[in-house]
Amino acid sequence: MPFADILKEVVNSTEGALGALIVGLDGIPVEEYAKSSDMDIQSMTVEFSSLLKEIEKGSQSAEMGSTKEVTVIADKAMIMLRRLNDEYFFVLIIKPDGNFGKGRFLLRMAAPRLLKEF
Amino acid sequence: MPFADILKEVVNSTEGALGALIVGLDGIPVEEYAKSSDMDIQSMTVEFSSLLKEIEKGSQSAEMGSTKEVTVIADKAMIMLRRLNDEYFFVLIIKPDGNFGKGRFLLRMAAPRLLKEF
Repeated sequence: MPFADILKEVVNSTEGALGALIVGLDGIPVEEYAKSSDMDIQSMTVEFSSLLKEIEKGSQSAEMGSTKEVTVIADKAMIMLRRLNDEYFFVLIIKPDGNFGKGRFLLRMAAPRLLKEF
Repeated sequence: MPFADILKEVVNSTEGALGALIVGLDGIPVEEYAKSSDMDIQSMTVEFSSLLKEIEKGSQSAEMGSTKEVTVIADKAMIMLRRLNDEYFFVLIIKPDGNFGKGRFLLRMAAPRLLKEF
């Protein structure tokens, strides 16, 4: 299944999901699917992808090993980032009243399927 | 209940928890409780507290509002940061096989009690 279809499936199966992306550690998106135009997903990605590198550096220096998953819950959105491989992350953006747990579950389930497409 | 007792209670009630701290956005810990000496909690805190500021900046620029909770799952540890007020975060560090969900629940429950002590 192509990237775009998997992203669409995860977003449409998660109540309150706004969009999903596959992003490189450099912040450049490979694929994206936005359900709603309410939120500027592109600008959110740019902000958060720079954080990924910082978080990875932090994990390594703190001897926590490599980062597998990062979640940020803010007032207006929840964002989940899951590592796919050395260079790419899967990002899911959900509304504050969305189904966080389901999003996380679907993100984890989708990861191996996405990896096959690389 | 003093800070130290609340931290101890959360750590001892969460399976696999290694320690907990109250940290300022500037990275300086107010109080800490470490169950195990396996992990250098102090150095982890320094690494991650600098990230807090970055994450907060990211959330604000991405118009996500203020950050309420951040979770980082790495190979060797899981770290949960929950905002207490404008200046302080509650941090819980758990082993990879620990009870993540329970830790998160107890962290949320403890937040209002900790706030009363400020």
